Amino acid sequence: MTFLKKLVTASRQQNSLLCVGLDPEVSRLPSSLQNLPVEEAVVLFCHAIIEATAPYVCAFKPNIAFFEVLGPHGMKVFQEVIRAIPNHIPVIIDAKRGDLGNTARNYAITVFDLYGCDAVTVNPYLGYDSVAPFLAYKDKGVILLCRTSNPGARDFQDLLVQTEDGQARPLYEVVARRIQSWNAYGNCGLVVGATYPQELRTIRAICPDLPILIPGIGAQGGDLEASVQAGIDTYGERAILAVSRSILYAGSGPDFAAKAAEEARRLRDRMNEARQQRKEVDKS
Amino acid sequence: MTFLKKLVTASRQQNSLLCVGLDPEVSRLPSSLQNLPVEEAVVLFCHAIIEATAPYVCAFKPNIAFFEVLGPHGMKVFQEVIRAIPNHIPVIIDAKRGDLGNTARNYAITVFDLYGCDAVTVNPYLGYDSVAPFLAYKDKGVILLCRTSNPGARDFQDLLVQTEDGQARPLYEVVARRIQSWNAYGNCGLVVGATYPQELRTIRAICPDLPILIPGIGAQGGDLEASVQAGIDTYGERAILAVSRSILYAGSGPDFAAKAAEEARRLRDRMNEARQQRKEVDKS
Repeated sequence: MTFLKKLVTASRQQNSLLCVGLDPEVSRLPSSLQNLPVEEAVVLFCHAIIEATAPYVCAFKPNIAFFEVLGPHGMKVFQEVIRAIPNHIPVIIDAKRGDLGNTARNYAITVFDLYGCDAVTVNPYLGYDSVAPFLAYKDKGVILLCRTSNPGARDFQDLLVQTEDGQARPLYEVVARRIQSWNAYGNCGLVVGATYPQELRTIRAICPDLPILIPGIGAQGGDLEASVQAGIDTYGERAILAVSRSILYAGSGPDFAAKAAEEARRLRDRMNEARQQRKEVDKS
Repeated sequence: MTFLKKLVTASRQQNSLLCVGLDPEVSRLPSSLQNLPVEEAVVLFCHAIIEATAPYVCAFKPNIAFFEVLGPHGMKVFQEVIRAIPNHIPVIIDAKRGDLGNTARNYAITVFDLYGCDAVTVNPYLGYDSVAPFLAYKDKGVILLCRTSNPGARDFQDLLVQTEDGQARPLYEVVARRIQSWNAYGNCGLVVGATYPQELRTIRAICPDLPILIPGIGAQGGDLEASVQAGIDTYGERAILAVSRSILYAGSGPDFAAKAAEEARRLRDRMNEARQQRKEVDKS
């Protein structure tokens, strides 16, 4: 089963566009876990979050930086954590890797073969040959940074570039077109921040069928409704709205998992209302 | 002591522009180590390479992908390996990280606080705020990808961009200018591949004082003499020529460390001849 198939199946079964980001910050763990050894606390926290929110998601997105920072055994913790993700829900490892030849191959082996993730985020700045070792895994997803949700995205991604057709276009549009051309195996995806719905709409038009991972709702201030409506494809699918902090830390007491589930369900429902609204607008 | 000071001091003391890249490939380890458990073999191999080549280098550059691929204990191996690098020689961790806010902070904590590296390679595509958490470590080096050594570098890095002065310039030039403006603490550096000496010369002119890490000599076909002469500053310094495979695998028998030392010395001497030639040309 390919990543895209697994994603769409999970999204339909669970009726959800929500992806829960697993970014466990040690200093924000619930008080009930703070007396445990850090590694154990992180595992218990993530397992509780996964179990409580799994019914409401189309994917989980563990962020590798939050595990690496735990020290030399951080990836052992990561492995423990993702073991609890139900088999039918895809795991997108947020790693933003990007390097050449043999190094890229090693990164691909690590995330796909070693840890069994279904998809990985990759930085496209080094060009096609740096992405090819990931794309070679035809059943895995390669989700490439296109237009990110931060203010600094303007520094390079928005620069106007001279294109072959003589037009000047923002770099992120050129990147989106290039990624569309790399999609021979149907395993490419894009990262586009929720903070710029207009850019998201443009990119969706360039890549009508690609899954788009959309971070930046909640803590980063992105508009949920606008992002859903700009990000979904013509069938109301293939948008993956990633939310981390507002779900993970919805509660800080012993009922943190129940609070997380409540917030996940609430967000999933709002996302579904937003796509329902667009369906009605499209029909009329 | 800042990274730049440590680099320049080591480079002068050892009279070297050579940086040995530590990319241990399990399948290419010398036959004498192949019966050992993989983790032990990698540590012994790297320790032997470090000890043998240390007299001829200005820095070591371990590539994190080759340790991560060893599995959940890979970073334990990494920690063991870099422990053997003499204190006066800077450690540049080749990780090409790049992410936002809290995630970038975690990556910075990991490479600088946890593993004690002197510098890290970072991908600039996400812009200033993704780099700031690394720059906040004023004594550490932040070496940003600018123009890489691979064919795919053309996909985005060479695109012509409209700049504020109305000129069209390749993206890598705009990136170099931006990095120069991020150098308030004097802790920025650049990665520029050896395969494009003309681009390297242009970038050196834009950033006259920044250290430039130059991979791509040897296995990737970059011209050693041209790269040294295009990459050094006006004092013949601040170019870091990274070589991995042709040193690490100079021999495959029990004398692999001696062969590596021989190759390292040979390359260091050729680099020094090349900079001597430029000094003579500059004088005349």
